[in-house]
Amino acid sequence: MKLKLAGRECKEKTIVKVGNVEIGGDELVIIAGPCAIESEKQLIETAMAVKKAGAQILRGGAFKPRTSPYSFQGLGEEGLKYLHHAGQENNMPVISEVMDPRDIDMLDKYVDIFQIGSRNMQNYSLLREVGKGRKPVMLKRGMSASIEEWLSAAEYIVLEGNRDVILCERGIRTFENYTRNTLDLMAVPIIKQLSHFPIIVDPSHGTGREELVASASRAAVAIGAHGLMIEVHPCPCDALSDGVQSLDFEKFQSLSKDLFTIRNCLDLL
Amino acid sequence: MKLKLAGRECKEKTIVKVGNVEIGGDELVIIAGPCAIESEKQLIETAMAVKKAGAQILRGGAFKPRTSPYSFQGLGEEGLKYLHHAGQENNMPVISEVMDPRDIDMLDKYVDIFQIGSRNMQNYSLLREVGKGRKPVMLKRGMSASIEEWLSAAEYIVLEGNRDVILCERGIRTFENYTRNTLDLMAVPIIKQLSHFPIIVDPSHGTGREELVASASRAAVAIGAHGLMIEVHPCPCDALSDGVQSLDFEKFQSLSKDLFTIRNCLDLL
Amino acid sequence: MKLKLAGRECKEKTIVKVGNVEIGGDELVIIAGPCAIESEKQLIETAMAVKKAGAQILRGGAFKPRTSPYSFQGLGEEGLKYLHHAGQENNMPVISEVMDPRDIDMLDKYVDIFQIGSRNMQNYSLLREVGKGRKPVMLKRGMSASIEEWLSAAEYIVLEGNRDVILCERGIRTFENYTRNTLDLMAVPIIKQLSHFPIIVDPSHGTGREELVASASRAAVAIGAHGLMIEVHPCPCDALSDGVQSLDFEKFQSLSKDLFTIRNCLDLL
Amino acid sequence: MKLKLAGRECKEKTIVKVGNVEIGGDELVIIAGPCAIESEKQLIETAMAVKKAGAQILRGGAFKPRTSPYSFQGLGEEGLKYLHHAGQENNMPVISEVMDPRDIDMLDKYVDIFQIGSRNMQNYSLLREVGKGRKPVMLKRGMSASIEEWLSAAEYIVLEGNRDVILCERGIRTFENYTRNTLDLMAVPIIKQLSHFPIIVDPSHGTGREELVASASRAAVAIGAHGLMIEVHPCPCDALSDGVQSLDFEKFQSLSKDLFTIRNCLDLL
Repeated sequence: MKLKLAGRECKEKTIVKVGNVEIGGDELVIIAGPCAIESEKQLIETAMAVKKAGAQILRGGAFKPRTSPYSFQGLGEEGLKYLHHAGQENNMPVISEVMDPRDIDMLDKYVDIFQIGSRNMQNYSLLREVGKGRKPVMLKRGMSASIEEWLSAAEYIVLEGNRDVILCERGIRTFENYTRNTLDLMAVPIIKQLSHFPIIVDPSHGTGREELVASASRAAVAIGAHGLMIEVHPCPCDALSDGVQSLDFEKFQSLSKDLFTIRNCLDLL
Repeated sequence: MKLKLAGRECKEKTIVKVGNVEIGGDELVIIAGPCAIESEKQLIETAMAVKKAGAQILRGGAFKPRTSPYSFQGLGEEGLKYLHHAGQENNMPVISEVMDPRDIDMLDKYVDIFQIGSRNMQNYSLLREVGKGRKPVMLKRGMSASIEEWLSAAEYIVLEGNRDVILCERGIRTFENYTRNTLDLMAVPIIKQLSHFPIIVDPSHGTGREELVASASRAAVAIGAHGLMIEVHPCPCDALSDGVQSLDFEKFQSLSKDLFTIRNCLDLL
Repeated sequence: MKLKLAGRECKEKTIVKVGNVEIGGDELVIIAGPCAIESEKQLIETAMAVKKAGAQILRGGAFKPRTSPYSFQGLGEEGLKYLHHAGQENNMPVISEVMDPRDIDMLDKYVDIFQIGSRNMQNYSLLREVGKGRKPVMLKRGMSASIEEWLSAAEYIVLEGNRDVILCERGIRTFENYTRNTLDLMAVPIIKQLSHFPIIVDPSHGTGREELVASASRAAVAIGAHGLMIEVHPCPCDALSDGVQSLDFEKFQSLSKDLFTIRNCLDLL
Repeated sequence: MKLKLAGRECKEKTIVKVGNVEIGGDELVIIAGPCAIESEKQLIETAMAVKKAGAQILRGGAFKPRTSPYSFQGLGEEGLKYLHHAGQENNMPVISEVMDPRDIDMLDKYVDIFQIGSRNMQNYSLLREVGKGRKPVMLKRGMSASIEEWLSAAEYIVLEGNRDVILCERGIRTFENYTRNTLDLMAVPIIKQLSHFPIIVDPSHGTGREELVASASRAAVAIGAHGLMIEVHPCPCDALSDGVQSLDFEKFQSLSKDLFTIRNCLDLL
């Protein structure tokens, strides 16, 4: 693997700062919010609830990469406005996915972190374009990407000048289909070994089942993830996207409390 | 699977016409050429050799999606000029990969078929953009895409108005690593069953090994593929990309002859 | 890969002789019969039909490795008697699966070829035991076995003295679940390259869908398989095991004719 | 999935008792020892060290299922005598793998728990045979077994009368080859949801890399595994089998301490 900038040899540790939040340091960072932004009300409610429960960053998709063109595709710029507003109201940085290099300037007005989704992990035009910007980029692992390919994709971003990359493990595709994907938690210590970027885990896509999100999250904290990205919805049954893997406010609050407890416990080791 | 336009229910058969070539009809179509365009000389020589051996369409990559940013990335527009010229000189339609929606207008001047590569199979911005055009689109299967996801990606293109989609099986990612990918030849009859698009096979990426390309190609013809896309290079050892899976002129000529023989033999069944 | 006896370096070509049939030579060998032996009548009828259609060897399972203990487990020794009898009546060698080293002596009275199933590819006690015998062994590839592991399993057999090993590709497990398994046809040329054993293909398990068996079989012949093993049942809808992937007599006869035509065509290349 | 005896509907919880140890209860159970028994000295030393560090059960392989017949195959009955002796000296129950139904009576004299290895997860003769016995059986997940197939394999055991089954997740085979297998930790909560058996994790085979064993183990405890099975060797570099994934005494002691700390922490949630 030829990594000049993404490899551990070149740097000990990258801590990405967004507002008052540090990703990659000692603090456990929780990113939470709905899979898709559906309305201003939904987002404001969710932002308040997850903030109160301890989440530091708000997520919400405005451009949704959906397998079928007939599925809900997101609210676009209108959704980003809601996201930006909800973030400001609650003093939370916000993250949203970018799918098209032509949208970057527009998204730049609303988001604090650009998310590159799994389907676009090797969309090199997009990687280069966010690499030219200054805002942090969260690069999700591709569904069938090896660790090596993932880090090589990160190299594309860093090579353009932007050093604030956050990696996100979200499950890989295997023969097992009880879960939506197979969450590869070993990616966490491996990424820490091979690179200097923060590594967070997405237990929502990683499992695809709401009842497994808490278990996956606990394991992710115990294995040393710098953070988690969790889908939360005021009413998962009515969600326009991925409701089956979203937590409601109550479950999220309970989980969040547990995660900080486990994180603290690790200091005893 | 919700397919309104890509499904077999909506149409019996799509035959894509490019110049004098029909893809999806009775004739076996062979697309050949180098993985990456390296020079005008390389391309002209290759075009003449593959044309003489029976290939009807010329391929050549000008924008190369490479795992590492330090690998050869292609000659860009300069390469497309060579491709266009070589195609015209030999009366062959040409195909090349597009990676960025912003490049489409430029490529449109030079290519007869747009190729969407495996890494971009779910790059929906790109799919929509080629879907708005009039030139045929060859959509390669993603490395870990199910047949269903692949056809749903085709639906994105057709939904924008462009009905000339050609599907290309190029191997999927599995645990077996003797070959670069595992060529899923069963995709050929399955695609014919579920959709109306022509289906071709790429034995070069599908195996990743020059010595297996002939075997894979024979099987692809026997299973009913409408065509093949084969990497050919004047001197595979010196190739800047994928030399290990490229045929030289002599091997390609010999293979091509065999493939037409097998194709003819199928008429006896 | 450390292969002393199974590797190509040690021998050019193994031709396995069973009765008048040579497996691994120029002739295309077709093994056909029901997944599970259900009754004497079923077997006799099937034997006559497949013999007439050109099959040289009769298959039938008496000990069935089923995922669930509540599925039909086979008729045991009674079934083997039917198999033996049907083989003798039609002058066909017979093959059946052995699952337990303690059953080998008993099976030895009835079968001409021992089959080791996918689930037992690395059941080393069983491999060693059939390796001590004199009858040919057909070793099916494990569901997630690499080519290397498969050949190493063959080495276990040969090391005990029995050199008559036949390898059978039957599909590997991947993320794609439209088919029961992903038939890895490239295994055929690879096995020919790396070892000296005959290699046959099982399109029935390889696809798990009756409507794909013909396509898979054609491709297998074109890629150079020495033979095929195909599930045939007088009335697939009533089969106690794997009916969904079994051909009826008429379809088998039509397919068999096509396969010999394609085989002959290969001599033209 | 048709589970009459292995499913959660039929029983709330199985606690397997071996000597003074309860597997499946509140206590975290650590099984430790060498991959292969190599000598009496090796085993005695290891037993004392892991006992002191908190392990409750001693493991050691006497019959080793190795991919190549030329790899060390284990000491056989001699090794079992060492294991039995080391267990008695240290008041630890012992576990060892059985590969052949004909060996069960012999092993029964020496071991307290029978281990069924991954390669034999669907060796139904072997499953039935250990199912007829009274000693607990630890059933490792097959390399490409779905959760459903794994539980169905357990059903084979229980159906014969033996209800003391322990399941062990040890990684599945995927495209990712940085690790030897992909440890599917989500199997832990899923097994708890679908069945009543204790579920333990093998981080040694699950990762195949000594430097990842600690991370994997921490996550396994946090996700709720009832126990762990960890390979420990006095001198991993000299191990005859799997040295690259074995911990030395010091590392094991440090890890063990951490694991009990995390386990205690879970009581705070």
